[in-house]
Amino acid sequence: MNAAIRAVVRTAGFYEMSVMGVMRGFHGLIHDEFIELNPRSVADIIHRGGTILKSARSEEFTTPEGQAAAVANLRKADVDGLVVIGGDGSFRGGMRLQSAGINVIGVPATIDNDIPCTDYSIGFDTTVNTVIEAINKIRDTATSHERIYVVEVMGRHSGHIALYAGLAGGAETVLVPEVKADLDDLCRRIVGGYKLGKAHSIVVVAEGVGGNFKTGRSLDESSAFRIGNYVKEKTGFDTRVTVLGHIQRGGNPTAQDRIIASRMGAKAVEMLRDDRSGYMVGVVHNEICATPFEEAFRQGKSVDLEFHRLAHILASQ
Amino acid sequence: MNAAIRAVVRTAGFYEMSVMGVMRGFHGLIHDEFIELNPRSVADIIHRGGTILKSARSEEFTTPEGQAAAVANLRKADVDGLVVIGGDGSFRGGMRLQSAGINVIGVPATIDNDIPCTDYSIGFDTTVNTVIEAINKIRDTATSHERIYVVEVMGRHSGHIALYAGLAGGAETVLVPEVKADLDDLCRRIVGGYKLGKAHSIVVVAEGVGGNFKTGRSLDESSAFRIGNYVKEKTGFDTRVTVLGHIQRGGNPTAQDRIIASRMGAKAVEMLRDDRSGYMVGVVHNEICATPFEEAFRQGKSVDLEFHRLAHILASQ
Amino acid sequence: MNAAIRAVVRTAGFYEMSVMGVMRGFHGLIHDEFIELNPRSVADIIHRGGTILKSARSEEFTTPEGQAAAVANLRKADVDGLVVIGGDGSFRGGMRLQSAGINVIGVPATIDNDIPCTDYSIGFDTTVNTVIEAINKIRDTATSHERIYVVEVMGRHSGHIALYAGLAGGAETVLVPEVKADLDDLCRRIVGGYKLGKAHSIVVVAEGVGGNFKTGRSLDESSAFRIGNYVKEKTGFDTRVTVLGHIQRGGNPTAQDRIIASRMGAKAVEMLRDDRSGYMVGVVHNEICATPFEEAFRQGKSVDLEFHRLAHILASQ
Amino acid sequence: MNAAIRAVVRTAGFYEMSVMGVMRGFHGLIHDEFIELNPRSVADIIHRGGTILKSARSEEFTTPEGQAAAVANLRKADVDGLVVIGGDGSFRGGMRLQSAGINVIGVPATIDNDIPCTDYSIGFDTTVNTVIEAINKIRDTATSHERIYVVEVMGRHSGHIALYAGLAGGAETVLVPEVKADLDDLCRRIVGGYKLGKAHSIVVVAEGVGGNFKTGRSLDESSAFRIGNYVKEKTGFDTRVTVLGHIQRGGNPTAQDRIIASRMGAKAVEMLRDDRSGYMVGVVHNEICATPFEEAFRQGKSVDLEFHRLAHILASQ
Repeated sequence: MNAAIRAVVRTAGFYEMSVMGVMRGFHGLIHDEFIELNPRSVADIIHRGGTILKSARSEEFTTPEGQAAAVANLRKADVDGLVVIGGDGSFRGGMRLQSAGINVIGVPATIDNDIPCTDYSIGFDTTVNTVIEAINKIRDTATSHERIYVVEVMGRHSGHIALYAGLAGGAETVLVPEVKADLDDLCRRIVGGYKLGKAHSIVVVAEGVGGNFKTGRSLDESSAFRIGNYVKEKTGFDTRVTVLGHIQRGGNPTAQDRIIASRMGAKAVEMLRDDRSGYMVGVVHNEICATPFEEAFRQGKSVDLEFHRLAHILASQ
Repeated sequence: MNAAIRAVVRTAGFYEMSVMGVMRGFHGLIHDEFIELNPRSVADIIHRGGTILKSARSEEFTTPEGQAAAVANLRKADVDGLVVIGGDGSFRGGMRLQSAGINVIGVPATIDNDIPCTDYSIGFDTTVNTVIEAINKIRDTATSHERIYVVEVMGRHSGHIALYAGLAGGAETVLVPEVKADLDDLCRRIVGGYKLGKAHSIVVVAEGVGGNFKTGRSLDESSAFRIGNYVKEKTGFDTRVTVLGHIQRGGNPTAQDRIIASRMGAKAVEMLRDDRSGYMVGVVHNEICATPFEEAFRQGKSVDLEFHRLAHILASQ
Repeated sequence: MNAAIRAVVRTAGFYEMSVMGVMRGFHGLIHDEFIELNPRSVADIIHRGGTILKSARSEEFTTPEGQAAAVANLRKADVDGLVVIGGDGSFRGGMRLQSAGINVIGVPATIDNDIPCTDYSIGFDTTVNTVIEAINKIRDTATSHERIYVVEVMGRHSGHIALYAGLAGGAETVLVPEVKADLDDLCRRIVGGYKLGKAHSIVVVAEGVGGNFKTGRSLDESSAFRIGNYVKEKTGFDTRVTVLGHIQRGGNPTAQDRIIASRMGAKAVEMLRDDRSGYMVGVVHNEICATPFEEAFRQGKSVDLEFHRLAHILASQ
Repeated sequence: MNAAIRAVVRTAGFYEMSVMGVMRGFHGLIHDEFIELNPRSVADIIHRGGTILKSARSEEFTTPEGQAAAVANLRKADVDGLVVIGGDGSFRGGMRLQSAGINVIGVPATIDNDIPCTDYSIGFDTTVNTVIEAINKIRDTATSHERIYVVEVMGRHSGHIALYAGLAGGAETVLVPEVKADLDDLCRRIVGGYKLGKAHSIVVVAEGVGGNFKTGRSLDESSAFRIGNYVKEKTGFDTRVTVLGHIQRGGNPTAQDRIIASRMGAKAVEMLRDDRSGYMVGVVHNEICATPFEEAFRQGKSVDLEFHRLAHILASQ
């Protein structure tokens, strides 16, 4: 996200607009945690993971009082426009502020890549690369026969990370929340793979997959362990589990993430400058574009089933 | 490239076609260095840099005798179609074989990204990420005032690597072969940056830039050192040079490179299967497509000047 | 391990001794899977994780018949000496062959670093660096208050990885099998840390820690999830779990691992050349040394409690 | 260095001592750039390259007036002891302050590893790993025959980086300032290597090597390009040059660097607490120790010629 913050601040500077940063998202809006940001403030941050403005959840902002306080603070600070960087929840918050008369532009940033009207959200490419580096390392020693590796990646409701990382990582099987998991078919595929001479089998599982067959309390069991136990019992093969967890949220951003962040951040400022608001920016077919919030919320974003099919073709032999 | 080889072999296997690999490119075609490739041969290669088929230059193939030998070997081996993975030179060779009656599909793979009719060539994203990791490390200690870092990247005739890496790396200046370098303007910008409070200045230079102001013999001097010396003399600032060289050709491929390689490799096989040849495949606006060789050669590929402008806006303050 | 194999082969070549490689360890000894290794065979392997000779478990070798077959194969192949690269189990196997008249030298290679008579085993430094890179990434976004990250690392019986990675990674708490875990004390420390203003708490757990409070079947539950659940319930803080698993076995080896592998591999050959056998080589206080197998088995290797104390001092404030 | 700063601050906190940080080294001492440091100030810095206290050269400190100002500022701030983290020059400065009555402990931190009385300086292991990652990448595509890669690493007066990285990276030849370079012998070795079937030759060169055969002005020519040109002319082989430059100073620190930094930082505080000063701490044979400055300056630190010989044995076949 730092690349997007840098782009907003410096594009604004280029147009001689001044910028303030809001710490900790909507929490900071309500509690008046505004800081000055000038082109120097964003020096040497483009390569850092995380965000210099920090993030937080804000229960308060879901209340009318919270929203009113945020609007009041923005008015008091004489703010002409607000750039909201985040995911679905952030954009819903942004739309409420827009309704209350604040000019808002949204910039999509979520590793899950589940925001419609943009091919990529900031953070997604970095996360996918983190996952495939993990799979690389597993592959390095995956030479023993009859071993199964189950790798759990993020994605409670969407399988974008699992699908991209599974295809790029050469996983034998990818399980995503959008497609009902058939564990018996998985076991048959694994056994079939060994008969073809495969030395090992890598199964990438989105964390939300478990939802298809468990009524889970959060944390106390993971999809990967459940699936690993099932497969081990059915096939008798040695099964090892990796749960990547929050590793996937950090790391130095990739080139692609920085470039789309830079382009979208600059676009957000240019839109506010042109008196356009109530939009989220995005990148579609490699071009920067903008979509009204309402339209974005009407659409869903489904995983690319061509990728699912291709991953299957390339790994099933 | 290994991801593309894997995709070709496994897609072919899926359609029950058989595949041979040619070692060392056109050299291997002439000298009959064919090896059998089956789905198992390409296991555990998707994450490796380089290529299992190795590469070599072939002077011989530029002669009619060389080409005739290649055609004869392909006929003898009863080959129905040839997938050529490489850059401009490889495609010109492929077109000659096509003219001689061999069915050829080209898959663009060159870190320079200078092939027209595709947004990205295999290897480009990996190289750009390698360059920005290098810039990250320089940035880590770049806190002393009045220091200039000149980083030379690949690109004899095209500035794609320099431009993407410069934008993503937050470089203060990017010099590309396509735009005449004005070193005095560069010096003015650097001095101006320090007056704005910039702690340091990072200049990314494509290796071909030197061509604009020198009549160089290869190797014996680098663009970066020439520019570094000039800047040091003019500004008096401490100047340090990095020449990345062949580091840029290796490294584990990124997710994006593996995904486009997988998609393009699969597409190449499907085209041959559909009796279409004489094309290069590519990815344009995130969709896989195909362009006849002749058309591809008619077009040039220029650097995206929007990127140049954006890099300037974001770094010049 | 590839660096050690390279060192053995090339040192032998230097002394004009010839070398064969045994595929898949003791399994290959029994089944006569010998391959020729010359200095060229080990070119371009020093930077690869895993081992070109692959590895496998061998139940057969635990039987007298298996051992007799191995000895017979070594005699038939006219082998003067055997270098065994591995951990405790490999060395016990090696000692049996030594008793049967084969000259054996052991080279310690296990990521657990639990082999006595050597400060470091090959692979340990690489693994510790893999773990701290994971912790780095968690730290990048660990800015939300009141969150706990539990990271499970390898180590069923020993806490070396946890301790080094915890100290180097700046973990708030390190739980190792050698010290009985007091989860209530852990919860008190976490709550205390938040009162001191700590934004988050990172807990590194060796997989074997669970053994202290569960009677576990392998796989079906992990120490980290058990501990995470306990802590979440007691403290009410948001708790996230990462289980690194087999990621820790791969990756490009670090400089230190390659250097000790090179030194120990060379030493192993020099000892056989000097007609000394029945030893394991090692690195103690930065010097290469050798210890008779019997003596090595008599000693245990305990974790360095100075490190435990230092990790505590540095993180508990 | 951040790991050492963290260790100093937190160990001091543990003993209920208070700590200030001095920005930009001796420059900050003279100009009173002191900042408060508490255990929270050093949170989440252990994994960052560079130093939160920044660094600078100080011409002023070489004058008696500068030194007097520094002493006056330290007295005014009621400082009981000073921890100087740096290399040879920093320690000489520290010794002057010690003579003027300030209690000083030195902590060795220089990537060159040229400080005597310690096996390792902070930063060295990180730099060596950065260099071998670069060599890894070169190796990935180094499959073409008859090509030579020259890699220039840091080390004006000492070849520690070149030697460790050359041995760990499997370089065919390592040129260090301590041993006179014989370029004709180098060419003979390269040609000999090709006759043995080596696909390529990697030559690691310390930047100071050029000093042996040139009267160089800084910057305007590099050792690597000079050597590359010479070798190309003599052997006719294709020669490619990489000059790593300041990449070597950055990057996330390795586990080993963080551990020795943590141990030495803690030791420095404990020594001041025990009223001992005028020492540099160090790590010798894996134990933390301390040496009076005078003694450290009397000794030189030579490169380990066993490493040079081993690199030669392992690569010359």
